Amino acid sequence: MAEAEDLMDLLIRRGFLWPAFEIYGGVAGFYDYGPLGSILKWKIIDQWRKIYVFEEGAIEIDSPTVTPEEVLRASGHVEHFLDLMVECKKCGSAFKVTDFLAEAAGVNVEGMSKEEISRIIRERNLKCPDCGGEFGEVSEFNTMFKTAIGPGSRRIAYLRPETAQGIFINFRRLFRIARGRLPLPVVQIGRGYRNEISPRQGVIRLREFTMAEAEVFFDPKNPNHPRFGEVRDEKLRLWPAKNQMDGKGEIEVTADESVEKKIVCNELMAYYLVLTKRFLKKLGIPENAIRFREQTPAQRAHYSSETWDAEVFTRRFGWVEVAGIAYRTDYDLSRHMKYSGENLTAFIENRKESVICHVVEPSYGIDRPLYCALEHAYVTDGERKYLRLPKELAPVEVAVFPLLKKDRLVEKAREIWENLRRSGFLAEYDDSGSIGRRYARADEIGTPYCVTVDHQTLEDLTVTIRDRDSTKQRRIKISDLSQVLRGLISGSLDFFSVGSEYKGREEGEHEENEN
Amino acid sequence: MAEAEDLMDLLIRRGFLWPAFEIYGGVAGFYDYGPLGSILKWKIIDQWRKIYVFEEGAIEIDSPTVTPEEVLRASGHVEHFLDLMVECKKCGSAFKVTDFLAEAAGVNVEGMSKEEISRIIRERNLKCPDCGGEFGEVSEFNTMFKTAIGPGSRRIAYLRPETAQGIFINFRRLFRIARGRLPLPVVQIGRGYRNEISPRQGVIRLREFTMAEAEVFFDPKNPNHPRFGEVRDEKLRLWPAKNQMDGKGEIEVTADESVEKKIVCNELMAYYLVLTKRFLKKLGIPENAIRFREQTPAQRAHYSSETWDAEVFTRRFGWVEVAGIAYRTDYDLSRHMKYSGENLTAFIENRKESVICHVVEPSYGIDRPLYCALEHAYVTDGERKYLRLPKELAPVEVAVFPLLKKDRLVEKAREIWENLRRSGFLAEYDDSGSIGRRYARADEIGTPYCVTVDHQTLEDLTVTIRDRDSTKQRRIKISDLSQVLRGLISGSLDFFSVGSEYKGREEGEHEENEN
Repeated sequence: MAEAEDLMDLLIRRGFLWPAFEIYGGVAGFYDYGPLGSILKWKIIDQWRKIYVFEEGAIEIDSPTVTPEEVLRASGHVEHFLDLMVECKKCGSAFKVTDFLAEAAGVNVEGMSKEEISRIIRERNLKCPDCGGEFGEVSEFNTMFKTAIGPGSRRIAYLRPETAQGIFINFRRLFRIARGRLPLPVVQIGRGYRNEISPRQGVIRLREFTMAEAEVFFDPKNPNHPRFGEVRDEKLRLWPAKNQMDGKGEIEVTADESVEKKIVCNELMAYYLVLTKRFLKKLGIPENAIRFREQTPAQRAHYSSETWDAEVFTRRFGWVEVAGIAYRTDYDLSRHMKYSGENLTAFIENRKESVICHVVEPSYGIDRPLYCALEHAYVTDGERKYLRLPKELAPVEVAVFPLLKKDRLVEKAREIWENLRRSGFLAEYDDSGSIGRRYARADEIGTPYCVTVDHQTLEDLTVTIRDRDSTKQRRIKISDLSQVLRGLISGSLDFFSVGSEYKGREEGEHEENEN
Repeated sequence: MAEAEDLMDLLIRRGFLWPAFEIYGGVAGFYDYGPLGSILKWKIIDQWRKIYVFEEGAIEIDSPTVTPEEVLRASGHVEHFLDLMVECKKCGSAFKVTDFLAEAAGVNVEGMSKEEISRIIRERNLKCPDCGGEFGEVSEFNTMFKTAIGPGSRRIAYLRPETAQGIFINFRRLFRIARGRLPLPVVQIGRGYRNEISPRQGVIRLREFTMAEAEVFFDPKNPNHPRFGEVRDEKLRLWPAKNQMDGKGEIEVTADESVEKKIVCNELMAYYLVLTKRFLKKLGIPENAIRFREQTPAQRAHYSSETWDAEVFTRRFGWVEVAGIAYRTDYDLSRHMKYSGENLTAFIENRKESVICHVVEPSYGIDRPLYCALEHAYVTDGERKYLRLPKELAPVEVAVFPLLKKDRLVEKAREIWENLRRSGFLAEYDDSGSIGRRYARADEIGTPYCVTVDHQTLEDLTVTIRDRDSTKQRRIKISDLSQVLRGLISGSLDFFSVGSEYKGREEGEHEENEN
């Protein structure tokens, strides 16, 4: 726990993220990404797009966050996107009953009626934890942010609770643009909103977040993925709903077995579970901290007939849901056909018939995986504290230092820095404090490589390059720097193979730095 | 106009963009970006970040769109972000009075009071254009989308009308992270919202849009840019407010002259006008379609003491505002200091004093420049209609075709396509219809290069590469393809210098294609 607080302190201090609206006292559920955090977020989104857009060949759309009520009435969100809450009669504090009762009384009330829960609160004589006041009755709260389009309140709208609906209502157009290809993955990346009753879990329970969702439309008679063969033997750690309800644990099966033994609904589901695991591993999350937990019927959203949550283990919050892969059946397209009166079927060429496509939906948060990646990257190794982020994700890829703050060294270092920036590296320049302190500052934000310009540089145009993880140094030519760094960051080069060994200078040796 | 409609038809049909929520009848002011449009949008954002983040060295943040009322009360938006409207008493239709009176009566009512405008409407006996009904009195409408955070309506919030406030309220933290550097450019890219009364200009008047804003904080005693020397001689086409009010036209001056003759407030303003022009030119907008119009005092936002709108000429909408560069003085920081009680001053090391920084704000829409780029790219050259988009912006960078739909050609073409995708190109494969039709389809969406696999390919592993703009072809080795394409797209290679001349095949010659 102390470690988690240490990390949070680092993240705030160095500009990864912090609670939003701080100078006005803050508002729970909203965070700002600072300069380092916003680069990290871009990079995580890039990784996701690499998998879904470049490798899977998904088409991408970008639709509004403000969504008129008709759409969300059709999708079932106006009716079903509800949380149960209680309000304190005295101070007005509101609580989400599932969280409150789990914390205050250790009771799981998921799936219970309002009346049952009210009875439990009365029987156990539970009071407001803020002021000791009495609670009112349990009521329903729709957790979509509500607004109105244009003057007056005739045109009700909500901030989208998911990006998915923007895809479903455009299915006809998208299917035509993709020339009838099935399965057809369509993705959208953008903000999603959930007006939580009273979020209390910092960066994990946000009211506004970034999502990356894929809606994979398929012919219900052919729920297969053309490249399933490539993932068939990958291991999945699954915790089926039945096991949870029977008090049994997780199982490990191959993707293939998960389909054959009917643990998951179809091949597409198994395929996207594997892809999800791959994505999380790309973020540096170790395999043993990843599992898939099937939602129990009481936990499942109204549109889903089977949902697997990808969960990552964290020291601070335990197992955290970071993605959900849902089998939405033909629920959404059918509802939109009914509510809009439009035809959203797909014509299957080789069977000469029209069908309503079914959908498997891999839906990812971006904020939570980002936090999980940071926590798993955080190494507290004796005196040394650093972020062992995957090199490709590091918000600063290389730092350039003059060994001493002397004109000729500074000039050369700045020149190298400028060139690296111009070559597209996220490079930083730092000349303040001892070289040891500068290495430590770079380590702390996960900078994988530090380049130091020293006296020898002026003689033979070589620099030292230091590796974050091993703290070892090599000596290389300035003219090779760009290519070497590219190879090191992408993983195609091994650090100990570049340039020549360098042991000449110990960290902290040159404390004579003028500054 | 027919041309503009043609273009809109193309953009919708090929999946650049279309009115959102179509199956529910649509809602004015909301658009979807389709598969091609969303890539184009990403690329435009990338261009912007390249200038502001990589070249200017700005730091970037990412803050929530939902903003509590306190912040927007302090910023003046609750009080000032208003439009005047009239509602029809009979049908309830609402109109923004400035637009309505300009259209219906040719009267400019900007800066007039509600009473004056009501009088004009009565005197001229203006009626509702929708139903002929009578209007009520002119009233004020705050054009922020309003919502509430959490249950009940105690915690009012709005969707941000600009990303800027997220930067201002974090100034203290950002200034520390940037270690006291001034001028300090901080940028944010993301959604902005304006709840227009009744938008009627399609893609140009959106209620939800993407913005890219830079807040450049500076010491009021030093409003200079360290690299002004590099832009000093660049020409700017300016239309000062005074000239507009005096019925005079535009002037052309250098950046340097604009400062010296006190046409613009300071060097930073002139610098960012030049940067804005450069950004627009990167999007393929020709210099003669770019001008800067100074807002008149009646048009200026409450926070600004001087604003220059970058305008682009379009066939469809005339001159369109695509960016605004505002001198916000210390207005925002001062207000937030007053309303939050926090100290948001900056300590100036070399003068040993604390100051409230001033701000020059270059604020860009992304959607409007995107539309303008498409309109300027649209060439209707006799029978040939195509998008001459800058090559780097093209949403499909290369299309790969087998000349005929024969197994060995198809196989080879697909292999080349897969390799290009794996090398990071936005590549498409197409084997349907004649080769001429496929070239035309690629032209229509601005694909700069088409690669065709023919019989000779199977013999000597060469392909033809066709240039969109000249429609000429060259013959090159498959093994050179990736490198050649990279050079062509980035502009470092000239098309007529690659491979060898190829005249062997005429377009449309091979209509025997099986499909």
